[in-house]
Amino acid sequence: MTRPLPSPDTAPAAPSLDRLVALVATDMAAVNQIILDRMQSPVALIPQLASHLIAAGGKRLRPLITLAAAQLCGYQGTRHQKLAACVEFIHTATLLHDDVVDDSLLRRGAASANAIFGNKSSVLVGDFLFSRAFQLMVEDGSLRVLAVLSEASAVIAEGEVHQLLTTGDLATTEAQYLEVIGAKTAVLFAAAAEVGAVVADRPEDEIQALRRFGTNLGVAFQLIDDALDYAASEAALGKTVGDDFREGKVTLPVILAYARGNAEERAFWHRTIEDLDQTDADLANAQALIEKYGTVRETVARARTVGDAAKAELARFPDIAIRSSLMEAIDFAVSRGY
Amino acid sequence: MTRPLPSPDTAPAAPSLDRLVALVATDMAAVNQIILDRMQSPVALIPQLASHLIAAGGKRLRPLITLAAAQLCGYQGTRHQKLAACVEFIHTATLLHDDVVDDSLLRRGAASANAIFGNKSSVLVGDFLFSRAFQLMVEDGSLRVLAVLSEASAVIAEGEVHQLLTTGDLATTEAQYLEVIGAKTAVLFAAAAEVGAVVADRPEDEIQALRRFGTNLGVAFQLIDDALDYAASEAALGKTVGDDFREGKVTLPVILAYARGNAEERAFWHRTIEDLDQTDADLANAQALIEKYGTVRETVARARTVGDAAKAELARFPDIAIRSSLMEAIDFAVSRGY
Repeated sequence: MTRPLPSPDTAPAAPSLDRLVALVATDMAAVNQIILDRMQSPVALIPQLASHLIAAGGKRLRPLITLAAAQLCGYQGTRHQKLAACVEFIHTATLLHDDVVDDSLLRRGAASANAIFGNKSSVLVGDFLFSRAFQLMVEDGSLRVLAVLSEASAVIAEGEVHQLLTTGDLATTEAQYLEVIGAKTAVLFAAAAEVGAVVADRPEDEIQALRRFGTNLGVAFQLIDDALDYAASEAALGKTVGDDFREGKVTLPVILAYARGNAEERAFWHRTIEDLDQTDADLANAQALIEKYGTVRETVARARTVGDAAKAELARFPDIAIRSSLMEAIDFAVSRGY
Repeated sequence: MTRPLPSPDTAPAAPSLDRLVALVATDMAAVNQIILDRMQSPVALIPQLASHLIAAGGKRLRPLITLAAAQLCGYQGTRHQKLAACVEFIHTATLLHDDVVDDSLLRRGAASANAIFGNKSSVLVGDFLFSRAFQLMVEDGSLRVLAVLSEASAVIAEGEVHQLLTTGDLATTEAQYLEVIGAKTAVLFAAAAEVGAVVADRPEDEIQALRRFGTNLGVAFQLIDDALDYAASEAALGKTVGDDFREGKVTLPVILAYARGNAEERAFWHRTIEDLDQTDADLANAQALIEKYGTVRETVARARTVGDAAKAELARFPDIAIRSSLMEAIDFAVSRGY
């Protein structure tokens, strides 16, 4: 028996999604085909607008979770492909409606659908994709899956309204903030993972473990998103830095910086976040305060703790390639953009 | 045996919904309670905004159809109550999203939810109600009902996008117009009626007859709506007269008047509908052209023909009180506002 030489590519690499993507590549190709087929409509603007978001691609993180969860559960069929497409349709619908909500100028590195096509079509095409997702679920025929994703959709809408209400409100507590991101982001990650275990017909404790995995991954993902909005460069992120600041969103970096600020600093936050009275220099001022109190670093640290909780949920599953690549996906989620 | 004297109140009265409403009153009280219970959310703005539309009431025409269809089919249970609430939730969601789309100033006689609460919350509360409708259907547990209403929702969204594309386009044909109103309005009437027959577990031909009844009633209803936009007084209608004109919607009264107009009149329509270049006097000018060619009267006449087709579908059902009150409801739909 010869001992292998140390290979130059065993040096620790930055975590990535590459291995995960490779392990579900065949399934994802099928998902992409389902998405293309099922966004069709005699009304041509619908596939045009939908493909602007869906074909642009993004990371397809949520359907990836469904496919990986099903594989982790040893599922051998193809139902997870259609259901992963449902998850992506629901996500895309919320993005389209979020464009109306947020006036985002950039999303996924391209001009937002809303900026190009207008509020009206964004709302309606989102409604179409949302309805189409439910049609796909009905075709699949599982009332359990329908229950999971209809509840997720209701909670996402509640979370978005809740976020709207906390916007500009510096009295927002950390607990309220965590409720908002739990509802607006983590619930769909949780549902995406749960659906993978449900189609595999796994026992309830495994379904719930994958659900908790999804919840924690989603919270970690959103914490990093909110950190990046004050930390990253636009080119690296593919979204506008300072969006949250300009919209007066009260995210964790701000909550912590406001809590620790002196009177003058608090007056700055009141003016910029509550009154939305901002000058061009204010984003840099906000970033300086956030740097002073280390609240982006602290937000990232919390994301890592929550990411560890997500990893812990995977421990009960067999130690196969898809499990370690999901672990790596968590590392990727909490280290992206840095 | 004494012969009753002719009663003074046997004189032919204007058709109304009163008898229909009375026949399903108990069920409708249950529907209203379900609506109230299930629009609740820990996020208080959701029931506030939803109740602005739902509690304001309106005619509850769509759930009324579900309840009446079930009664016509001899259904004895209570499932139709929850499903009628679903239908109303879906309708309310489309109204909320239509507010974003249409910038309507008045709806159901009150300031629109959108004008008061803003685009953002209208979109998100609509999403919540839509999701909640699917949750109620999942609780009911019928995949057939889920199929009917998820397809209806997708077609409604397609119809609204299609309408958006025909807005301002005087080349819109009558056939395209009828497609739009078939999709954006008639499909939910059809689904509301179909669901009533589905819960009663009736044979497929009766289900389809009730579906066609709903389609025709919905088309008639929308034709009258589009006629009233040029004909009624605001006080009688509870919505702003001239909305469609100001938004450049190409409805049947306009399509017919444009087709019959001379060069000068066509130039008027191009300026006002295509270019949306309107003065305060232009609505009256448009109404005069529509009067000149009798196109509101013609639209109403078509609605009556379609209403007769709706009545014909009811012929196969037993001649009980609910059937004649549904016939009267059709008469009401095609004569309201006159």
